[in-house]
Amino acid sequence: MLTFNDTLKACDRLRGVARRTPVLTSRQFNEQAGCEVYFKAENFQRTGAFKFRGAYNKIASLTEEERRRGILAYSSGNHAQATALASRLFGVPATIVMPHDAPQMKVAATRAYGAEVVFYDRYRENREALGERVCRERGRTLVPPFDNYLVMAGQGTVALELLEDVPELDFLLTPCSGCGLLAGCATVAKHLRPSIRVFGVEPEAGNDTWQSLRKGERVEIAVPRTIADALQTPVGRLTFPIIKELIEDVLLVRDEELIETIRFMLERMKVLIEPSGIAAAAAVRHKKFDFTGCRVGVVLSGGNVDLVKLAGYLKET
Amino acid sequence: MLTFNDTLKACDRLRGVARRTPVLTSRQFNEQAGCEVYFKAENFQRTGAFKFRGAYNKIASLTEEERRRGILAYSSGNHAQATALASRLFGVPATIVMPHDAPQMKVAATRAYGAEVVFYDRYRENREALGERVCRERGRTLVPPFDNYLVMAGQGTVALELLEDVPELDFLLTPCSGCGLLAGCATVAKHLRPSIRVFGVEPEAGNDTWQSLRKGERVEIAVPRTIADALQTPVGRLTFPIIKELIEDVLLVRDEELIETIRFMLERMKVLIEPSGIAAAAAVRHKKFDFTGCRVGVVLSGGNVDLVKLAGYLKET
Repeated sequence: MLTFNDTLKACDRLRGVARRTPVLTSRQFNEQAGCEVYFKAENFQRTGAFKFRGAYNKIASLTEEERRRGILAYSSGNHAQATALASRLFGVPATIVMPHDAPQMKVAATRAYGAEVVFYDRYRENREALGERVCRERGRTLVPPFDNYLVMAGQGTVALELLEDVPELDFLLTPCSGCGLLAGCATVAKHLRPSIRVFGVEPEAGNDTWQSLRKGERVEIAVPRTIADALQTPVGRLTFPIIKELIEDVLLVRDEELIETIRFMLERMKVLIEPSGIAAAAAVRHKKFDFTGCRVGVVLSGGNVDLVKLAGYLKET
Repeated sequence: MLTFNDTLKACDRLRGVARRTPVLTSRQFNEQAGCEVYFKAENFQRTGAFKFRGAYNKIASLTEEERRRGILAYSSGNHAQATALASRLFGVPATIVMPHDAPQMKVAATRAYGAEVVFYDRYRENREALGERVCRERGRTLVPPFDNYLVMAGQGTVALELLEDVPELDFLLTPCSGCGLLAGCATVAKHLRPSIRVFGVEPEAGNDTWQSLRKGERVEIAVPRTIADALQTPVGRLTFPIIKELIEDVLLVRDEELIETIRFMLERMKVLIEPSGIAAAAAVRHKKFDFTGCRVGVVLSGGNVDLVKLAGYLKET
């Protein structure tokens, strides 16, 4: 189970280690969206995404023996870097299982933190099976990307900080994929402010969480084609019951809307957000729900973009 | 004359109007540069550059009669937007004289603030003469981009805030062109911390301030070819004696070094800085002086880049 108290413990562990990221605002964004938006800028978090919080909280909770044996994580990118850095801070050996087509920048960053990278073909191999085999053979402990209460508790500290800075939010939106960030933030937000309405946001092409909420059970879909490379994982087994209970709904955004919002934030707000990280902001900007006149918290969950890919987004009109 | 007290007055006028911009740090930048760098992020300032401070301070000091008659400014870009917004906040009519080849984004932003834009050909016409004619014909007051003590005092508040946040700096670097920012910041920094050493930074191709310091008098050069479009103006008549007395020297950076540093800041720090705005950071990153082991304040002076131009910088290797 995930409790509010777990997130407070995570917050203690992360103090002085994770960055307290700033809350950004933009007059122009607000004017165009017709509401007051408070952006929690996790693109400024260590390793460039919120993932560091959950990975660190999990590794901080390992026994001495587990730390000695090392950890393993599988990730399409941000969780990899986060786990690699958190491991290094504890002196724990780390193996990261990554898809063969992961962005080069994310692979390089993971290795730069001293982790060993093992590749798999994500259209043919099962990363869970591969990960389990390595864990068994080498006695490593798995640091799951989302389906773990310690990981969710770490991600929940994003909402803890945001609501401390801006207590009177009417809404809270986060991108969602495995839904660790959404589950952690929803748990915190509904505890601190029961009247708040929480939404997840996912790409239209990868709307498995949206479908799952409608069906009342987890729906798995094929790996979706979207530029939001960190939002391609299905909702988790442990996260789903939590979000099902706590959130309002999932909103859907198109890739063009992600790109348009990346451009706006870069041009006007001077900050770089990755396609997956901007989903919640895109949902507000492209009015996927009527937030008129309300105070809306939006998590910008990461900023790791390949510059060559970014150049492509900037040239489109 | 420019005094420290003038900057304190400017600071009072700007309170609650200008943004108190954050001070950024990057472990990786520090490791590679071999020193501790504190970045004052004026790219997050209103209108995307420090220029708002000086323009606002000047317009705030006009008489009622002068405000009624309106103001005029000439600028290659950032001073235009800054003056347009500051005028709008006071309800003062504004005419902005801009070069015919100014970035479209800057022209559009200036008009969006309600200012009238008048173009001139910067390779054939004299903007000062054009500006003076319009001022005479319409009774407008000129808001100079740098050669004015109220403008310099406004820009000096950048250093005032930075030294309040990080008092024990060994060095302070700002980009320089007309040298309003440099003169204002040097005045503040040397008053608050006499041991501090202040540098200006300009493009190698447009090294008129560097030449002027060596000759002991203002040297004018032809409009330099550089991507740093806000660093093409020669040092001012009023700013030169101030910087000549207070600063250590001017450091020179090449366009490739500006681009490399823009890429680093975007990829690693997730912030967008324009070529002119990144000059001081590029001087530290590319070791134009030995700052080893020191605490270095660096002004990131603006973030207004055309996204199409930016895409070009990102594709180069």
